[in-house]
Amino acid sequence: MKSLKSVLPILEWAPAYTRTEAQSDLVAALIVTIMLVPQSLAYAMLAGLPPQVGLYASILPLIAYAVFGTSRALAVGPVAVVSLMTAAAVGQVAAPGSAQYLTAAITLAFLSGLVLVAMSVLRLGFLANFLSHPVISGFITASGLLIATSQMKHILGIRAEGDTLPEMLTALFGGLGQTNPYTVVIGVSATTFLFWVRKRLKPLLLARGMRPRPADLLAKAGPVAAIVVSILLVVGFGLAERGVRIVGEIPAGFPPFALPSFDLGLWQKLALPAVLISLVGFVESVSVAQTLAAKRRQRIVPNQELTALGASNIAAALSAGYPVTGGFARSVVNFDAGAETPLAGAYTAAGILAATLFLTPLFRFLPQAVLAATIIVAVLSLVDVAAIRRTWAYSRPDFAAMAVTILTVLLVGVEAGITAGVGLSLLLFLWRTSRPHMAIVGLVPGTQHFRNVDRHSVITDPAILSIRVDESLYFANVRALEDAVYDRVASQPALRHVILMCPAVNAIDASALESLESIAHRLQSAGIGFHLSEVKGPVMDALKKSDFLTGFAGQIFMSQYDAVRALQTPATAPAKLASV
Amino acid sequence: MKSLKSVLPILEWAPAYTRTEAQSDLVAALIVTIMLVPQSLAYAMLAGLPPQVGLYASILPLIAYAVFGTSRALAVGPVAVVSLMTAAAVGQVAAPGSAQYLTAAITLAFLSGLVLVAMSVLRLGFLANFLSHPVISGFITASGLLIATSQMKHILGIRAEGDTLPEMLTALFGGLGQTNPYTVVIGVSATTFLFWVRKRLKPLLLARGMRPRPADLLAKAGPVAAIVVSILLVVGFGLAERGVRIVGEIPAGFPPFALPSFDLGLWQKLALPAVLISLVGFVESVSVAQTLAAKRRQRIVPNQELTALGASNIAAALSAGYPVTGGFARSVVNFDAGAETPLAGAYTAAGILAATLFLTPLFRFLPQAVLAATIIVAVLSLVDVAAIRRTWAYSRPDFAAMAVTILTVLLVGVEAGITAGVGLSLLLFLWRTSRPHMAIVGLVPGTQHFRNVDRHSVITDPAILSIRVDESLYFANVRALEDAVYDRVASQPALRHVILMCPAVNAIDASALESLESIAHRLQSAGIGFHLSEVKGPVMDALKKSDFLTGFAGQIFMSQYDAVRALQTPATAPAKLASV
Repeated sequence: MKSLKSVLPILEWAPAYTRTEAQSDLVAALIVTIMLVPQSLAYAMLAGLPPQVGLYASILPLIAYAVFGTSRALAVGPVAVVSLMTAAAVGQVAAPGSAQYLTAAITLAFLSGLVLVAMSVLRLGFLANFLSHPVISGFITASGLLIATSQMKHILGIRAEGDTLPEMLTALFGGLGQTNPYTVVIGVSATTFLFWVRKRLKPLLLARGMRPRPADLLAKAGPVAAIVVSILLVVGFGLAERGVRIVGEIPAGFPPFALPSFDLGLWQKLALPAVLISLVGFVESVSVAQTLAAKRRQRIVPNQELTALGASNIAAALSAGYPVTGGFARSVVNFDAGAETPLAGAYTAAGILAATLFLTPLFRFLPQAVLAATIIVAVLSLVDVAAIRRTWAYSRPDFAAMAVTILTVLLVGVEAGITAGVGLSLLLFLWRTSRPHMAIVGLVPGTQHFRNVDRHSVITDPAILSIRVDESLYFANVRALEDAVYDRVASQPALRHVILMCPAVNAIDASALESLESIAHRLQSAGIGFHLSEVKGPVMDALKKSDFLTGFAGQIFMSQYDAVRALQTPATAPAKLASV
Repeated sequence: MKSLKSVLPILEWAPAYTRTEAQSDLVAALIVTIMLVPQSLAYAMLAGLPPQVGLYASILPLIAYAVFGTSRALAVGPVAVVSLMTAAAVGQVAAPGSAQYLTAAITLAFLSGLVLVAMSVLRLGFLANFLSHPVISGFITASGLLIATSQMKHILGIRAEGDTLPEMLTALFGGLGQTNPYTVVIGVSATTFLFWVRKRLKPLLLARGMRPRPADLLAKAGPVAAIVVSILLVVGFGLAERGVRIVGEIPAGFPPFALPSFDLGLWQKLALPAVLISLVGFVESVSVAQTLAAKRRQRIVPNQELTALGASNIAAALSAGYPVTGGFARSVVNFDAGAETPLAGAYTAAGILAATLFLTPLFRFLPQAVLAATIIVAVLSLVDVAAIRRTWAYSRPDFAAMAVTILTVLLVGVEAGITAGVGLSLLLFLWRTSRPHMAIVGLVPGTQHFRNVDRHSVITDPAILSIRVDESLYFANVRALEDAVYDRVASQPALRHVILMCPAVNAIDASALESLESIAHRLQSAGIGFHLSEVKGPVMDALKKSDFLTGFAGQIFMSQYDAVRALQTPATAPAKLASV
């Protein structure tokens, strides 16, 4: 049963499900439902989809995750960044509002699901490691800015399209003349109110003597208050007739069964976005899940998370939804509200279903400006200026990768941004490892230790070059070793022996092996011996599998001290004392 | 003057040029010229270009290299692999034989030159490190096979076009009926003769008492004999009228001044091929140059080689040539024949110019089959089956990169092949480094040393987890560390402290720093302390620049022994003896 349990984690906890756990899960589900209904409507709008699609994406996917997921608290569903990525990808293949647009979104969810499941089966989760933290952080910051800007048109009540920051700003300024005053009042009030709720309400309630947990929950219900008040205002003052754009009629009922398109041309166009959405969604989701699991000493299985998120996305596709992943804020709320098992997610799904069945008429008069306000307030918390400053202070290459990601997202687009960031961070990584730390070493007088000649007073022998490499040898850095050795050979005429000291060499790949061979041959043809010392056991085992040792004219010494003692000739020893 | 000398290495050796050096250079140039004339004609045919273009590519580029190059023996000019890559790239944008085809080849040389100079100026030579040895070796082996197959049509005297191995073989079998018997006799005889000269002539001459050097040179003159004899046969028996295809009229005269196309669309199409040609040419060239330089303890400056090869390619473009690089065989001949300075290359250029001015009428009746035979014999020496076997034995990931390169080159094309090989080797490298070697360590009884619990009988404490990472921590491997720590925390309920032992951690990037922070916070929230031990000096310096230490609740110990002694509680010590 162990293997079945690892594929279906539900079998792990469901048989022992207790009444106490059920109570906790139900309370958590109620709170998450209240939070998720407006978010689902808002993020569907952000993705350019009808509002009910956001609700559909918050039902079946949650049940799929409850069956397959290993996190007890992760809440999946539509999230801001993935909604933006969906809009960018689907907007390239279909016009917003068209049937093709919806089909493309469903297909994107399906493809993301396939990619995630394939990554799980093929154990390709390590691909997520391509996304370094600065790239992810820069991507999310830039996405947050882009999303907030994209929502300004709803706050102003104007039409303003654009995919990049300059396009959006141009369209916004160009459309300022068409601003609808009622919309602006509602939008600005809602945004201000939600910011106030987020930043000030909880401290205020605590100061008035409320206990932390209800204070927290009351603060989380802020969007609900904004929604109720704004609907009442729209209905009471007939604002829809005065140009305030409202959500409009949302069809009530169960999510329909849907099928993705199987048009190969569409699949090709959506393949890269699907991969990027999968990777970004997976990285974010696992990060949240691990943070929450660690607090209760629970365990997340990243490879199983791929399956679970894949199943969630396929479920989203089959129920007319769009790509989903684990959301940060809602998972924390779920955890804080006491969710004990993934069933909390299934209960949330039931809550959203109930809302879809019975509450949709209520949202008809909800102003789009209020949804935009909830999005703006949510995504501005994604903008992490401190991370930018921190990265700048700690590492310039990491900062460069982050800056390129941010600028490319803002000026070109989300896919280009993440691709550029990943490409640059790989390039910078290779650049760094292609110049490993190497030291010319000498003997510390009176000891058997060898140290860097640039840092210590050590004894060296002009006929012997001892060089230590502080890195595994592989294709990207062996040329640096070759260059260093040849430079030294050309500049040190008395040289008779080169000893490569290998205590920090954890591996030698085929390129490095060939380089060592050619160094040995080239030095030999110049009458110089080439030797190794302090080769680690596993590396020695690998060398023995190759024919390196049979063709190797030099010696391999257990210690650098043995090497220098054996190779020193009476004529050159005692050697000069080099101190720098 | 030092900086000027480093840009114009000619200033280094020219002022002290001696009569003895001049004599050596002239002899070497004469021999290389004899070898290079037929090669230039043959490789131009391989590239799909008129024969004189090969000669033009062997004049000005050699002079440019003589001015800028740091190798004393490298002989640049048209080479087989780059000719194949040129044919593949140019064939995609123009029809062979058209004026556009020639313009595209000239433009490709110009772009390669720009890429190489840009790489030199921007210090991007490290990009060549992307090409691991197995990928390069597989690429050259597959190119050799592809080139040899492509030349079979000339040996059979048939028309057979195709870009991939299956296409070529299909066309060859389909065209067997049109085989020209005279051509086959000439082609097969020439191939057999050239193979015999290459493998057997020198040993035979040595056995007859000839001294090694003249024997070697006589063997190198084999192609000249084949050319002379075949021309006489064609003229004597009127074979051109019997269907033996000949080179035809080659216009005599100086290389014309040419300009590349400045059509941006063409530049875009040729950009990737130009980058790949630059990288492959640079890697091959530097490798030959370093091998030869090491024999005389001379020095190659890789970055300056980029400038020199860039200048050579721009010179090729401006004189109606096509992409060039340093050739292996001709450089070895140049070196063995005694070339002392790059002036030998300039003398060779003069020799080729003389041939272009005065000898072209002689080549009119040269059968294409003989040129094909010289190509086949030359490129089959590029096929390195031993390298394939060696790589298989030593490393499966390296072998996979090599196999994918070979198969993709043969079945799809040269550009796809090298791109797939580089992509896969990077992926495999990341995959390997994303799972660094980590060991849970314990105290060796009676010492202060800590060793892997899986390999040694050591003392561990159930309340303390000591984990050692044998790799620098960076974005691709920190998640593995997180997973390992969280797994252990979830399965070891008595755990109170985790100590990360860092003697092999040479660097911590921004992603790893954040991971360490989140490990610390997550463990803290589970009531577990997180500490570091044996952090290297440079890593500690970097940590001090960040705000990591201010937020770090754990301790940093000089030694693992200090750490365990400080964190051990009387209740848990003395600990159980874990031996595996």
